[in-house]
Amino acid sequence: AEVMDVSARPEVVRSRAAIALFDANYGWGHHASRIAMDAAIAGARDAGSFTAVVRNSNHYGIAGWYSMRAARAGLIGLSFTNTSPVVAPTRARQALIGTNPIAMAAPAGKHGMFSLDMATSTVPGGRLEVAERRGETLQPGWALDTSGRPTTDPRAGRAGALQPLGGIEETGGYKGYGLSLMVDILTGVLGGSTPAAQIVPLFSADRGKHDLGQAFMAIDPAAIDEPGAFEARMEQELDLLIAAPTIADAPGRVLFAGEPETTAERRSAERGVVIDEKHHEALLSFADRFGLPLPESTAL
Amino acid sequence: AEVMDVSARPEVVRSRAAIALFDANYGWGHHASRIAMDAAIAGARDAGSFTAVVRNSNHYGIAGWYSMRAARAGLIGLSFTNTSPVVAPTRARQALIGTNPIAMAAPAGKHGMFSLDMATSTVPGGRLEVAERRGETLQPGWALDTSGRPTTDPRAGRAGALQPLGGIEETGGYKGYGLSLMVDILTGVLGGSTPAAQIVPLFSADRGKHDLGQAFMAIDPAAIDEPGAFEARMEQELDLLIAAPTIADAPGRVLFAGEPETTAERRSAERGVVIDEKHHEALLSFADRFGLPLPESTAL
Repeated sequence: AEVMDVSARPEVVRSRAAIALFDANYGWGHHASRIAMDAAIAGARDAGSFTAVVRNSNHYGIAGWYSMRAARAGLIGLSFTNTSPVVAPTRARQALIGTNPIAMAAPAGKHGMFSLDMATSTVPGGRLEVAERRGETLQPGWALDTSGRPTTDPRAGRAGALQPLGGIEETGGYKGYGLSLMVDILTGVLGGSTPAAQIVPLFSADRGKHDLGQAFMAIDPAAIDEPGAFEARMEQELDLLIAAPTIADAPGRVLFAGEPETTAERRSAERGVVIDEKHHEALLSFADRFGLPLPESTAL
Repeated sequence: AEVMDVSARPEVVRSRAAIALFDANYGWGHHASRIAMDAAIAGARDAGSFTAVVRNSNHYGIAGWYSMRAARAGLIGLSFTNTSPVVAPTRARQALIGTNPIAMAAPAGKHGMFSLDMATSTVPGGRLEVAERRGETLQPGWALDTSGRPTTDPRAGRAGALQPLGGIEETGGYKGYGLSLMVDILTGVLGGSTPAAQIVPLFSADRGKHDLGQAFMAIDPAAIDEPGAFEARMEQELDLLIAAPTIADAPGRVLFAGEPETTAERRSAERGVVIDEKHHEALLSFADRFGLPLPESTAL
């Protein structure tokens, strides 16, 4: 069985003035989601706000890509997806919910944009993988082992489950669990995809379709304000935060969500994207396999 | 100076098919917010989704009251408010953002409703007050002292600042800070209230108006689905979670957001609301001052 039907076309199932439900027909999540976010942007320009939901979808890549697309168009954008279950709800000993990210972006004038894109687990699964490869121990609050006990061993954590943002119940993990379920309701439950606990992982097509749900919202500040007024207030808001006196051991000034990523993006645009040797070898082999040219690369 | 103008009437400033901006004219936040949420509910029934923003507002009480109002009407409801600054952004040594709650509710058939209502700080300010009164120490990740160092001393924490959800930078506090700023953008920045860092506390009217912003969203699942289909999926979703095997030291089964509060509400409806003696004395003195009868009460 194939992971997804790459020829499937997303289509609108139902819509009203400020909502639309898209069916991705088990095709590319990225493609269906781009179409849905663009519908939300166009709809919000007309009605002031718009919600687009995608069902029967697949992995959609970076949650923030869609919200940033709205912000680049001058709107506030929100983007949500459910994922296969890798996080244990508070009190549960097994993974039943996803890392279900929340992404929100807004244009910020001279500051570029505010762009939040966060998993509702303490860390995404990749952090455990990196820790295992480097022989590091995990921070408390990141993972549970297969018997449901908090663990700092990356291997035990990878076999077990991630913890929701906040960690165990005593340290407020029910907040991360609540946010994760909120995302699941706005995506899978609202759109009509598989319940969170039963989502089949992306590369387990033999067990059934991946079947994710996504949701996008766009709000047009210009619908209730003079042009440029929202961005001016964003500048003022962020000016006051980034100028704040810092704690003694701060590694730098106060930042806002999206700043480190913007810096990294600028550096990559100027000096190229830095990747490790293994990644480069994999790209070379793909280029060879499909007969495609690979952009020039230099060893650092 | 008065804390607020109790005679002020909220009014619509601008609106489109799926958005409305209300001006509370510095009157009751509760009143303006109820009107705004009702507009969002009515608007979503028509357009499928609706966003209502309130500016020049005041304290609006319980964030979840508004989202639950939408859920009782069969819709998904979201409710956000900014607050006066009591939380230190990641790396900052002073309070510049609010506890900015996120509330979301959805009807869940036989399960009643899902209702999340959470501060984006690790704990709300009241928890420090209670800890000080009881002579308890704070958990790490709750508060900073006036010099910006993490503290477990309730008195030092109350003089300093709360920490965003996640605690310090190393434990993911930038996520709570990001969520708090997201709420501030959707409320104060979108509506045009005072920037977060400059909001005057509620009972400091000599320093200026309180001037908060609120935002409400409603989504009507029936706009993209058969009647009852959403609630049926909510039942299925929650059934799978609450039946999960629990960790060894779990104090009970897996819950979902809003369950403990529903249980408490039912108990109060049956046996009356339990309050402490000091609270009762205060109510008696208010009743006496305004010549109002107080409901019957019994000592436990």
